[in-house]
Amino acid sequence: MSIVICLFYFIVATAAKNAIEDRNKLLERELKMMLGSDISLSDSEMKANEIIMDLKIKELDYAFHHPQTFNLSKHFFDYKDEVEDTELFKLLQQMPKGAVLHAHDTGLLSPDYVLELTYMKDLYVCFQKGQVQFLFSENIPKTPCAVKWQLLSDARLSSSNVEKFDADLRKLFTLVVSNPKEVYSDVNAAWRKFQQYFITTGPLLSYKPVWEQYFYDTLKAFREDNVMYIEIRSVLPELYDLDGNVYDSVETALIYKEVLDRFMEDYPDFYGAKLIYAPFRMVDTKTVKKYIDIAKEIKRLAPDFLAGFDLVGQEDIGAPTKDFLSELEEAKSELDFFFHAGETNWYGTSSDENLLDVIALDTKRIGHAFALIKHPVLLEEVKKRGIALEVNVVSNVVLKLVDDVRNHPLAAFLAQDLPVVLSSDDPGVWEATPLTHDFYVTFLGVASRHADLKMLKKLALNSLYYSTYPNKDKIVHEFEIRWTKFIDNIVKDKW
Amino acid sequence: MSIVICLFYFIVATAAKNAIEDRNKLLERELKMMLGSDISLSDSEMKANEIIMDLKIKELDYAFHHPQTFNLSKHFFDYKDEVEDTELFKLLQQMPKGAVLHAHDTGLLSPDYVLELTYMKDLYVCFQKGQVQFLFSENIPKTPCAVKWQLLSDARLSSSNVEKFDADLRKLFTLVVSNPKEVYSDVNAAWRKFQQYFITTGPLLSYKPVWEQYFYDTLKAFREDNVMYIEIRSVLPELYDLDGNVYDSVETALIYKEVLDRFMEDYPDFYGAKLIYAPFRMVDTKTVKKYIDIAKEIKRLAPDFLAGFDLVGQEDIGAPTKDFLSELEEAKSELDFFFHAGETNWYGTSSDENLLDVIALDTKRIGHAFALIKHPVLLEEVKKRGIALEVNVVSNVVLKLVDDVRNHPLAAFLAQDLPVVLSSDDPGVWEATPLTHDFYVTFLGVASRHADLKMLKKLALNSLYYSTYPNKDKIVHEFEIRWTKFIDNIVKDKW
Ligand SMILES: [Zn+2]
Ligand SMILES: [Zn+2]
Repeated sequence: MSIVICLFYFIVATAAKNAIEDRNKLLERELKMMLGSDISLSDSEMKANEIIMDLKIKELDYAFHHPQTFNLSKHFFDYKDEVEDTELFKLLQQMPKGAVLHAHDTGLLSPDYVLELTYMKDLYVCFQKGQVQFLFSENIPKTPCAVKWQLLSDARLSSSNVEKFDADLRKLFTLVVSNPKEVYSDVNAAWRKFQQYFITTGPLLSYKPVWEQYFYDTLKAFREDNVMYIEIRSVLPELYDLDGNVYDSVETALIYKEVLDRFMEDYPDFYGAKLIYAPFRMVDTKTVKKYIDIAKEIKRLAPDFLAGFDLVGQEDIGAPTKDFLSELEEAKSELDFFFHAGETNWYGTSSDENLLDVIALDTKRIGHAFALIKHPVLLEEVKKRGIALEVNVVSNVVLKLVDDVRNHPLAAFLAQDLPVVLSSDDPGVWEATPLTHDFYVTFLGVASRHADLKMLKKLALNSLYYSTYPNKDKIVHEFEIRWTKFIDNIVKDKW
Repeated sequence: MSIVICLFYFIVATAAKNAIEDRNKLLERELKMMLGSDISLSDSEMKANEIIMDLKIKELDYAFHHPQTFNLSKHFFDYKDEVEDTELFKLLQQMPKGAVLHAHDTGLLSPDYVLELTYMKDLYVCFQKGQVQFLFSENIPKTPCAVKWQLLSDARLSSSNVEKFDADLRKLFTLVVSNPKEVYSDVNAAWRKFQQYFITTGPLLSYKPVWEQYFYDTLKAFREDNVMYIEIRSVLPELYDLDGNVYDSVETALIYKEVLDRFMEDYPDFYGAKLIYAPFRMVDTKTVKKYIDIAKEIKRLAPDFLAGFDLVGQEDIGAPTKDFLSELEEAKSELDFFFHAGETNWYGTSSDENLLDVIALDTKRIGHAFALIKHPVLLEEVKKRGIALEVNVVSNVVLKLVDDVRNHPLAAFLAQDLPVVLSSDDPGVWEATPLTHDFYVTFLGVASRHADLKMLKKLALNSLYYSTYPNKDKIVHEFEIRWTKFIDNIVKDKW
């Protein structure tokens, strides 16, 4: 009898062990596949990892049991300031994050910075209904104004309340509002306000002295957020000055190069910048051809500075990439592509299928690739061809592609170790830090609870690996030095 | 010179042709992979497909250009009534949809139906603050009531306004509100109200005469929505009657069987029902063992009626499946499993990893599998092992897993032809039709713009194929007959 019982328990125990073994094996296979799993941590890194994971897990597990407290499931505007005070955020800010590979040059600095620019002399303003226009000029501008051009300093002086006057101006330079879910009811509503930002700030920022200063200060801001290198996209607008000079796209590009050289002299520990010429996509074929010629000319004059070519603007309403396929194909041998694609949730539409076109065009990286998760063949191709995905989580929330970051496809991309780099798109427009907020949201809100320092390090390394920085060994070596210092500081509690 | 030009154009044309060919090949590969791509349409089906796709594309393309008009990006409660008047909805209602494989027995009929039940005699009510209790009884119930038990008919009669009285009662039987985004601020807020529905309606529905009628009328409602077979989940509560009899879970199951037999006599064109015993998961190991014994006993008494076993309740707060792994593993040889798993967006948590356990336990199907998209290894396993995914899109919106259905992982599941079946979970609680709304939302809001009649047919066929109906050939044959009739009606414009 006891033998029967024993046998019974033996069978049960064996069976149970099998299911546990099975599930653990499945988990192990998944963890081994995850982005960062190929990184092995040193003893110091393991200690630092414990500290980081302690912060992460504590916050996550509390939120799991009190979901209403979980910041990351709310709108970015509701928590972005609050989280800056957390230890985890401060730690990620200190962390060497590698490169920023997806950022638009005139959306990078805060509304406070832009407001400050309105204190410059020679700035005129035209307060029209529903549209404020700026222009630097020695005399009253000749551009039409439905009301009247006045010096901004005069307008400010004659306002009854300067604080309110400035607060109203500042609103023009940000998408942040207290009730984002009402104001930005759909993708197009968000994009309208987003595009309005660029229209309004255009003549402010394309004043040559401002343009130079803005870029210089951008490089400074990214450096301070522990970014070591940046590839910046620009529509390269015409610049102007008070003497009536106008600078075309090629000249604008060269002006960037000059500013960069000056910055590198002042901050030799920075690893520089490259330019991706990315003009508006809502144009005809002829204009695209003109764009390509401009890109080629920039490449001829500054071959080391130009990384390549892209097209920008809301994909859902712009022309699909397919419309320019033969023009772009023709330019392929001379220009590298870094196309935006799949920044949409309209599955099976022309904008969704820009993903097909940019891959057919051998794009080096894809900007956003939000819709890629719905394209199993393209997921394979991206992996096979090593096409990096420039993912901008915060941007996708602000521009209404996804509400709860936990539903962002990046979670799946990280799970299967796609070539992901994190970037920030236009952090100034939503008052985020240059890159830290995107790392924070990804690490705490998107990635698996298991994702740890290995994933953080790999994301930073990916950004260097998939950059066009010419000397990868050099930049990775320098990154490792900074990383080791960062780890030491954590372990010694000196951060 | 002209030869050089010719050569130049030749090269350009060839290059362009390559990119177009490439993108078209990629698209073709994707379309060939999509769920339903293996279906070939007859001439009649092709004609019907044109009619259906005309309706779909017209609506989709208008919405693409006017996204604020797109119902499917809003909350389900905002559009569910409105869309019932569309031609596409009516067509999908007529369409033979196969089987419903994921539905919970006491959440299937409308609040109006439940309200109607409160007009039955012998129903007592206790209006306590924040909690209304019902009980059928010959005399004043002895169960505690903080205020007082009264006959519901008396309470209604003495109310100053019967219409308002009934409207207030009705609110207890539905999750639908006019401002869902405020009321249901997070997953747990939605689940609290959802569970309250089951607590409140429990004693109403577990009164034996009501229980029998509710099930009978459920079968009728699903049959009328062109569902031919159903596998219904039940916690199998104790039933009661006026004579003081109490019926345990096994008896409750057998009562279902009797009702089913009666229904099949009245409606021999229906293909029947099976039971999945699915008690609450928030229990200890001992209770799970008791559950398993109950399931085995039902199986012994009604082997053709019991499909298998599951556990229900909010995964994020219930015990993880892992806690019961050895008990369930032990039962595996005798019971088939149809587990809920991955109904969460907390990636890497214990609830997320229920997916690992249920696959290790050889579950036949997975209820929801919402989080599966973040598990590349499990995606493979599910496909390899032919584990069907019971996807309930509308439920996931109402219970706050995802806001915009276009971000539902089902889109990716369909793209890679995972074994998907569409179901409706608890359509009565959110005032949806038994299955049509889930098909409508999937077809128009989740699937690719390219997805057509082939996908619709395949989804219906999947629901038969992955059911436990014993004679697949027979049920599929009958389905084909009904399908042909449906197609003929569309083509002859007689639907
Ligand atoms: Zn961008
Ligand atoms: Zn369910």
